[in-house]
Amino acid sequence: MAFEEVLIEGRNAVTEALRSGRPIDKLYILDGCQDGPISTIKREAKKSEAIIKFVTKDVLDRMSSTGHHQGVIAQTAAYEYSSIDDIFNAASKKDEPPFIFLLDNIVDPHNLGAIIRTANICGAHGVIIPKDRAAGLTPVVARTSAGALNYTPVARVTNLSRTIDELKKRGLWFVCADMDGEVMYDQNLTGPIGLVIGAEGEGVSRLVREKCDYVASIPMKGDIGSLNASVAAGVLAYEIVRQRQFLKKPAS
Amino acid sequence: MAFEEVLIEGRNAVTEALRSGRPIDKLYILDGCQDGPISTIKREAKKSEAIIKFVTKDVLDRMSSTGHHQGVIAQTAAYEYSSIDDIFNAASKKDEPPFIFLLDNIVDPHNLGAIIRTANICGAHGVIIPKDRAAGLTPVVARTSAGALNYTPVARVTNLSRTIDELKKRGLWFVCADMDGEVMYDQNLTGPIGLVIGAEGEGVSRLVREKCDYVASIPMKGDIGSLNASVAAGVLAYEIVRQRQFLKKPAS
Repeated sequence: MAFEEVLIEGRNAVTEALRSGRPIDKLYILDGCQDGPISTIKREAKKSEAIIKFVTKDVLDRMSSTGHHQGVIAQTAAYEYSSIDDIFNAASKKDEPPFIFLLDNIVDPHNLGAIIRTANICGAHGVIIPKDRAAGLTPVVARTSAGALNYTPVARVTNLSRTIDELKKRGLWFVCADMDGEVMYDQNLTGPIGLVIGAEGEGVSRLVREKCDYVASIPMKGDIGSLNASVAAGVLAYEIVRQRQFLKKPAS
Repeated sequence: MAFEEVLIEGRNAVTEALRSGRPIDKLYILDGCQDGPISTIKREAKKSEAIIKFVTKDVLDRMSSTGHHQGVIAQTAAYEYSSIDDIFNAASKKDEPPFIFLLDNIVDPHNLGAIIRTANICGAHGVIIPKDRAAGLTPVVARTSAGALNYTPVARVTNLSRTIDELKKRGLWFVCADMDGEVMYDQNLTGPIGLVIGAEGEGVSRLVREKCDYVASIPMKGDIGSLNASVAAGVLAYEIVRQRQFLKKPAS
């Protein structure tokens, strides 16, 4: 990915960017704004080499692409994609079997951001997205990831099903979420694992699905069709977390 | 709640409203739109007494309050709040111990809609929200609930902690989500249960929290602060679903 400037918008995202040590070039803060979160940002910014500029709301509104700057915008180099090796390194640094999210057909940047956020918190070591049909690492993704994009490596690949083949050679098992799969509680989801998440409605594409070792379903007990993609990712990810913690098949 | 007209916007929400048998007064469809989902809506609408009007995109844009009408808007009576008895009746109809979501401080309509959607799919019998400091059942809530608002009863109460006291007398236990609680896998979350969810960051208010029998935490293994409120609700709700299914304390 070529070097380019991007904007990080919103208090949470900017605070996390500063705390993670990410180089911020310039920080635009709403003039006269003195509340707690803004004071924290100013304090963190002083530890960095960021140039702070106090500007009017009009200036921030014009800069903002998300429409939710909350009085603060940071200018920084674009988020860079990581490599798959970066993800494996993150796992081995923690001395854990790899746990990777693979996203198929997630084109909505809000969903991408929310899923990266969940991946970070549930302890996954990285996220893999396909080059085509995926949202890029835009300011909206950064903002909805609530700062997770500063920590969790995101790799971009040309062909998701070929990547699955390669990762199988490195010892990973793959589970994909689909409504007609076996209930997730009844499957052994421990060990080095890739969790494949598709878009709402559309689901995971056929080719990718056929590469998966398991198809896991979330019990659907309601009247409507499906969970939101980021909620489904969270529910499945935490079933993996639970099984990893107890290191055996769940009670059945 | 007084009778008033509201708009349901978007294909998913309108389809679910029609299928649930909810009375639709008028249906506004983008003129010339012939794709699959719109054909389904037209077919469902013909079974109902809805008056179909074909209009231009301009007309839909002007009517829309969510900005995401996707070529279809239905006009209907406002969503009505249910009573707590309606929720108990829904549980007894299914012959299940009550499973109720209580939302504290959820003011964002997108989060409210997403949580009602999750409540429906995980098989909860209803959602309780406080009158003050809560988003109402607006078109945005209806749309992000993906139709769940047609099925899952939502009750509004004056005082959430007093309601918890009353529901305890009816046999419910209460678990609230908070980061400093005991890990959810180690708690017994079976039986008649109320799941209390607070807003991101703020969490559950002190008074409500003190009324809860358990404080349950989701394992946080990442670098950033918290899960999105609707993801957290989904993860906890499905731990309850899992324990209900296996009817015993999880392996520990």
